[in-house]
Amino acid sequence: MRLVRYQQGAQHGWAVQRPDTGQWHGMLKGGPVWPGEVDALIAAGRAALNAAAAVMARQAPVDLGRVALLPPLARPPKILCVGLNYRDHTSESGFEQPAYPTLFSRFTTSLIGHGAPIRYPELSDTLDYEGELVAVIGTGGSRIRREDALSHVLGYSVFNDVSVREYQFKTPQWTMGKNFDGTGPFGPWLVTDDELPPGAAGLAIETRLNGRVVQSANTRDMVFDVAQLIETISAAVTLEAGDLIVAGTPAGIGHARDPRLYMKPGDVCEVEIEGIGLLSNPVRRLPAPDEQGRSLPQPTEEETTR
Amino acid sequence: MRLVRYQQGAQHGWAVQRPDTGQWHGMLKGGPVWPGEVDALIAAGRAALNAAAAVMARQAPVDLGRVALLPPLARPPKILCVGLNYRDHTSESGFEQPAYPTLFSRFTTSLIGHGAPIRYPELSDTLDYEGELVAVIGTGGSRIRREDALSHVLGYSVFNDVSVREYQFKTPQWTMGKNFDGTGPFGPWLVTDDELPPGAAGLAIETRLNGRVVQSANTRDMVFDVAQLIETISAAVTLEAGDLIVAGTPAGIGHARDPRLYMKPGDVCEVEIEGIGLLSNPVRRLPAPDEQGRSLPQPTEEETTR
Repeated sequence: MRLVRYQQGAQHGWAVQRPDTGQWHGMLKGGPVWPGEVDALIAAGRAALNAAAAVMARQAPVDLGRVALLPPLARPPKILCVGLNYRDHTSESGFEQPAYPTLFSRFTTSLIGHGAPIRYPELSDTLDYEGELVAVIGTGGSRIRREDALSHVLGYSVFNDVSVREYQFKTPQWTMGKNFDGTGPFGPWLVTDDELPPGAAGLAIETRLNGRVVQSANTRDMVFDVAQLIETISAAVTLEAGDLIVAGTPAGIGHARDPRLYMKPGDVCEVEIEGIGLLSNPVRRLPAPDEQGRSLPQPTEEETTR
Repeated sequence: MRLVRYQQGAQHGWAVQRPDTGQWHGMLKGGPVWPGEVDALIAAGRAALNAAAAVMARQAPVDLGRVALLPPLARPPKILCVGLNYRDHTSESGFEQPAYPTLFSRFTTSLIGHGAPIRYPELSDTLDYEGELVAVIGTGGSRIRREDALSHVLGYSVFNDVSVREYQFKTPQWTMGKNFDGTGPFGPWLVTDDELPPGAAGLAIETRLNGRVVQSANTRDMVFDVAQLIETISAAVTLEAGDLIVAGTPAGIGHARDPRLYMKPGDVCEVEIEGIGLLSNPVRRLPAPDEQGRSLPQPTEEETTR
């Protein structure tokens, strides 16, 4: 199953792709048979989500080219990101490869959908890309064994762990540089695990900046694979339905290049994972939000109707 | 205003303290005039919370000694913790004092209320205390100026940023060591800002382990005060109502002592902040949750009726 959240005008909805036709079908919230929000359905369990998806598949077609895509989940309870999970990236970053996953977190305020502009920061010109696989937890749990771990995964998607390097390295902790508003492209959609190899391993992953390939790797090269990450994290921290594990980036980041290659307004950054999809986002200067936080990153009218 | 969330049997509710009598009044969810959950009321704004509190103040008394206290908020959208925010603690920890706040995050799965047991980890014996002030955001916002920052604060509470040192330092990022299940005591209640000095500055803060004073400081000694933290964070990351800023711990942690002083099962750790309250939690071995995550830290029957 492939599932997408979208916005049309001031309303949002979601849709599923019919495997026979490739066509997307869904509806906006408030429609007569609205089956509920994606986040709530994931929390309710796979059966509830499947039943809701069957309802959606019977609705009118949705042209994804005429709506703005949203992140597949609106408010994941946790967004656990893995640093240093490909040896060549650990090396280019000047770190020793730790024997335990290096974890940091993102907040939902950083998330944007496919096509939405990555907010060029007002505070720094060190904006960098990081193409990554993301696993979405479907069944929460604690002390999950590696051999059971993949049964806790609902599906996978694509993430661009856009980083403001100057702020990432201002202190010993990377949190701020990983959480600027509008720096977490996530999408374009969620692909359930039954459509992919176990653990989404063995998939080509590529990042392109303005069409130039800047990262090219395979998810099989992750130091800690998805099952291992779930076992290790859940040994200490209870996972919940809807949690994201953003599984780390391979070599090729702009910060490790000579000369450095940071993203600029007008650039387009694409991350593509074989069998999942293509996540593409332009980089834009956007008006600074006011003190009430109005004008968080939103797609422009042009992008909404693209 | 002082506001507390609590659990009685399988139900939860909340209560407010009447300033004239010192008595708490409130109700369990499902009662006839239930005004809504605390988290939702905080998100709805100060007026909505005040109106709901006025309803609660007219309900039956609640004996806090006969219910189990819960964290004042169930699901803060963000829990931003500040490391290295008292110079003497930065020094004892072997770090240079950064000129920018060192931020990491907690997940809601780590939170427990006053009186609930701190879960002694199955994986390590390096369990340490960190007494801290926590500010609760009432009005979200972006690019908040320092001079306006305190108007975005709803109130304050007490936090014990319990850390599993071995896991905190396994990798360059502290996330795992700060997020073990049942290691985030938060409470006992929320005190609104009108009852405290601006920014909750100038308050004595003390941590006691089995009655012995192990940390003793004053909130005026924070390197980055609450207003500064809000300005700095919101310059990059939009704050939302209900977000927590856990403002850092002073010197005296067990990990920096010679010999080291880690917490053991049977210990009782108290954090007290002048004018706010006393957060006390025993340390316990608890049954490991199963793979479905059942048996997250819960108060025992004894504690529920304490």
